[in-house]
Amino acid sequence: MIGVDWGTSSLRAYRLAADGTVLERLDRPGGILTVPPGGFPDALRDAIGPWLADGEGRVLLCGMVGSRQGWVEAPYLQCPAGPEEIAAATIPIPCDDAEVRLVPGLTTTDRDGVPDVMRGEETKLVALAMRLGKAPALICMPGTHSKWARLEEGRVARFTTHMTGEVFAALSQHTILARTSTDGPDRPEAFARGVARARQGGGLLHHLFGVRALHLMGALEQAETRSFLSGLLIGHEVIAAATETRVKQVELLGAAGLAALYAQALESCGVTVRSHDPDLVAGGLHHIARSLRWV
Amino acid sequence: MIGVDWGTSSLRAYRLAADGTVLERLDRPGGILTVPPGGFPDALRDAIGPWLADGEGRVLLCGMVGSRQGWVEAPYLQCPAGPEEIAAATIPIPCDDAEVRLVPGLTTTDRDGVPDVMRGEETKLVALAMRLGKAPALICMPGTHSKWARLEEGRVARFTTHMTGEVFAALSQHTILARTSTDGPDRPEAFARGVARARQGGGLLHHLFGVRALHLMGALEQAETRSFLSGLLIGHEVIAAATETRVKQVELLGAAGLAALYAQALESCGVTVRSHDPDLVAGGLHHIARSLRWV
Repeated sequence: MIGVDWGTSSLRAYRLAADGTVLERLDRPGGILTVPPGGFPDALRDAIGPWLADGEGRVLLCGMVGSRQGWVEAPYLQCPAGPEEIAAATIPIPCDDAEVRLVPGLTTTDRDGVPDVMRGEETKLVALAMRLGKAPALICMPGTHSKWARLEEGRVARFTTHMTGEVFAALSQHTILARTSTDGPDRPEAFARGVARARQGGGLLHHLFGVRALHLMGALEQAETRSFLSGLLIGHEVIAAATETRVKQVELLGAAGLAALYAQALESCGVTVRSHDPDLVAGGLHHIARSLRWV
Repeated sequence: MIGVDWGTSSLRAYRLAADGTVLERLDRPGGILTVPPGGFPDALRDAIGPWLADGEGRVLLCGMVGSRQGWVEAPYLQCPAGPEEIAAATIPIPCDDAEVRLVPGLTTTDRDGVPDVMRGEETKLVALAMRLGKAPALICMPGTHSKWARLEEGRVARFTTHMTGEVFAALSQHTILARTSTDGPDRPEAFARGVARARQGGGLLHHLFGVRALHLMGALEQAETRSFLSGLLIGHEVIAAATETRVKQVELLGAAGLAALYAQALESCGVTVRSHDPDLVAGGLHHIARSLRWV
């Protein structure tokens, strides 16, 4: 079978053996935003045509390819959801070249009735849940839109999204903080000060102006403001997501640099961190395919 | 005497009688960012030359003209500060045409040792403190950088700044929320929903992504997202500044439209609001001039 993680800005494809071994992989630009209307069959053939010609007949897609801007919109599946529920909610896509199905995103509703959504991360969570077993776990997936997912009984019970990465970019480029948020090496001590500030009173909107005030009063160097702001935002996220729920351990799933920052912030809040290889999509697609009886 | 509020983007000048009556006023562009290096004496003469020629000999300046980007940098004065302390900290500026002095900004340090700063608002607060008397009061001045000031014994005891207006602009223009934050009439019901959301758990960074999720799940119309986001941010500010300190009444000082939104948010959090005319700079400059024995 073939698994494809087709996101906004890239396409990653995996040719998988029946036991889940990755036989071949492909990683290239050509995200869904580059595909013209009606162009998805051609774009897929362009990417994995040789594997199809070589006899592969089944393709499982996940990621933003299932969004409103993608090939076909796959409605969000309500949590709790594990590989069985996700497999049952996959959407068939008519395609001349192969049997193609689309993994749905997930949605959850908090106790205040407010929804949240994910698309793409559910596939990684399926793989991680298989690895972690049935005990409850809190997963942190840092990024532009960080996801915090609660696993229970091997399924995604609920989750929250935090707009931390995108807020960092907007504030450091398009506010008064841009004047001092110059690029440069990370400053771990300034990052730690930002995390510590997040634990104090006053609220995030006040803490943000404090970045400016600290600099004006000579208490924060220009070269430190970017790391301080990063620590402030990640600190607020971690406190809201992990320490408010009194969790003692978090499973961290992210790219090395960002994951290290989250580990530092979590540990400074008294939370134990276990880091995991984030390269989980192929494994998740294989588990869902197994629930589909494809392998 | 002449009072001048010289800010980043505008210049407002007042010709004042000895009792503080405004005899003439001038309001024009020509903020400090438009003044070339060394050009402040000429720019001042250009604005108030006729009044000087008519016999006025003293000019008191406040606002960003006293910042690092202004005419002369006036160091921030530490709180608590009232008209006497502020008058004593005014800076003389050498000028051929008149006796010119500059009102300093204020700084405060919170119990965690973090500073905050204001420049320009202190003059309005002097005027409001004279009007309110010596009883303690909490003042809210909404805007790009909202100020919340605690008055005690007729002086500014301490204050906090919240970057709410600027964060709103950056998020509604430069994040995924820009896709739905189209201009349009205010939606009071959506604003109220945003304020109510701010009172729930999860943290601001999570609530921000919720704007997107609510829209994706059909629970928030595109025409409502801008007002909802506004309510969310103002709600977080109001909760941090007013309700966390368990204040029962706030004195509100702002332009009509924005002040109405803050009044709505405060009242929905159980805080009583008294609104004041924000046109207070001339009165504040007159009170400071009296402490200088100018009038």
